[in-house]
Amino acid sequence: MKNTSGSNPPLREIARPTTFIESRRLSRRLGVELVLASETFQHTGSFKFRAAYNLASTVPQHEIITASSGNFGQALAYACSLLGKKCTVVMPTTSAQVKIDAVREYGGVVDLTDVRVKGRNERLAEVALEKPEAYTASPYDDPLVIQGNASLGREICESGRAFDFIVAPVGGGGLSSGLIEGVRQSGKDHGTTVIGAEPLLANDAARSLRAGRIVKNEVEPMTIADGARTVSLGENNWRILKDGIGEIIEVPEDTISEAVRTLYGLANVKSEPTGALSLAAIMTRPELFRGNAVCCVISGGNVDPKVYCDLLGG
Amino acid sequence: MKNTSGSNPPLREIARPTTFIESRRLSRRLGVELVLASETFQHTGSFKFRAAYNLASTVPQHEIITASSGNFGQALAYACSLLGKKCTVVMPTTSAQVKIDAVREYGGVVDLTDVRVKGRNERLAEVALEKPEAYTASPYDDPLVIQGNASLGREICESGRAFDFIVAPVGGGGLSSGLIEGVRQSGKDHGTTVIGAEPLLANDAARSLRAGRIVKNEVEPMTIADGARTVSLGENNWRILKDGIGEIIEVPEDTISEAVRTLYGLANVKSEPTGALSLAAIMTRPELFRGNAVCCVISGGNVDPKVYCDLLGG
Repeated sequence: MKNTSGSNPPLREIARPTTFIESRRLSRRLGVELVLASETFQHTGSFKFRAAYNLASTVPQHEIITASSGNFGQALAYACSLLGKKCTVVMPTTSAQVKIDAVREYGGVVDLTDVRVKGRNERLAEVALEKPEAYTASPYDDPLVIQGNASLGREICESGRAFDFIVAPVGGGGLSSGLIEGVRQSGKDHGTTVIGAEPLLANDAARSLRAGRIVKNEVEPMTIADGARTVSLGENNWRILKDGIGEIIEVPEDTISEAVRTLYGLANVKSEPTGALSLAAIMTRPELFRGNAVCCVISGGNVDPKVYCDLLGG
Repeated sequence: MKNTSGSNPPLREIARPTTFIESRRLSRRLGVELVLASETFQHTGSFKFRAAYNLASTVPQHEIITASSGNFGQALAYACSLLGKKCTVVMPTTSAQVKIDAVREYGGVVDLTDVRVKGRNERLAEVALEKPEAYTASPYDDPLVIQGNASLGREICESGRAFDFIVAPVGGGGLSSGLIEGVRQSGKDHGTTVIGAEPLLANDAARSLRAGRIVKNEVEPMTIADGARTVSLGENNWRILKDGIGEIIEVPEDTISEAVRTLYGLANVKSEPTGALSLAAIMTRPELFRGNAVCCVISGGNVDPKVYCDLLGG
């Protein structure tokens, strides 16, 4: 059978290698030896494809459901289409039309829910009851997600460059925990420390580290970095992050915008706000990085033109 | 001596390899097997660095002068800074401040000229008289420029992909003639045809091909693709293009804008208008490419936010 998990091509054959980008002007400006690892050219435009494909190709279920207004939904829809599996993505009715269209173009079924009436997770639970044979996928809190994202950490460590730091955005913790795992798995750990970049407006992960336990946001925080609007870290992520992450830098909103503009102006990189969080973290705490070799993960590039141009001020 | 031409590191050690980007959605939309070869992450943000470094590292002169309001000026300034050579770039007083700043940041001297009073080339001739020991560099009409750009053609042919077509913008003809040379030099010519993409508003190269001799524009044409605002092909370029190029596609301005938006929306690529000409050519003549393997050269990414956002309509 084509779609049993054993016969699917592994992630390493399907995911695109990350794109390493150097900008002399950016490095000089920041006083660090900077390399961007851009996942903006990954399938579906963000690192989420790594997690989605690893999950969808490993679980035996032939149908996968998730709730996502953003990159994970597109990534899962595309991964499932490659694997001949069915996929339903619960999305708020307020989602940007381009994101709804993208999920559909990748072959996913969009289940629109009015979040003023019924929460996304509540609707997802209903769909799960309607489809008892489907696998319900979390965008971050799943060992298969973490393992998929670990592939990026391995690639960075195996790139032939010795980094002191890898900086990456933190939302639910799927990427940062995956990077920590990937660095460990690479066997090429040059003392590389993974640093998280979190919006100050959504600083539950930083507060969790300080408290030594998962601290949740009261409500979904309205940071411009929409990929980091999670209410809390996942349990699976926390187990890795609590001892594995070097630090979490809390980034003001203005600095996120500045980082988007800087990537545009000095590196020709189109980044979504969440993707620019890692550069924004370096701008927020330059003294931590100065003189070091830093890999800055640009996690995704999917951003509406209107939002992007507001940020560019163009 | 450090700066004699023999001891400089060769271009292949200094230029960044081109970035190959695939977009499933873009390929499906166009009905071609499309790969982008993006030079937007090349040093100084465009392919021009290949030409500039090859020229600056080969000529024995220790000072190089040129006239450029755009990418060649930045590229030459940076190439000269790497080689410890002096560089002066004649630029119109009306140049965008970011471009003037970039040349200076790369270590070049900017010679501003009011083009209402004195043409760029007239001013360049004056500077050449003032600096008799300097080499005057054309951004396209020089065998060393063509040879530098040929490195991109070789890379594309040696990438392990067999392309039916390579599509690239045509201004003075430096890139397209270089690609033709590179394809020949690679020894891996899979019947690959180089196709030019020229703004309809600046179609001197297409008219030259039809006439069998160089035909010039009356004035500098005001296409949005500012890298293609050349008055005519260079002699060195024409010698290669007249028999070597498969065709030149004349692209309407609206299609250039649409290609910029498409690269943004479906491939996360930030392209300047000239860089999007090659995709625009495929959109203009889709029947020529349908079902074929096409490499589309995105020649550069340097564009002011204001211009870019006007194009995105964001």
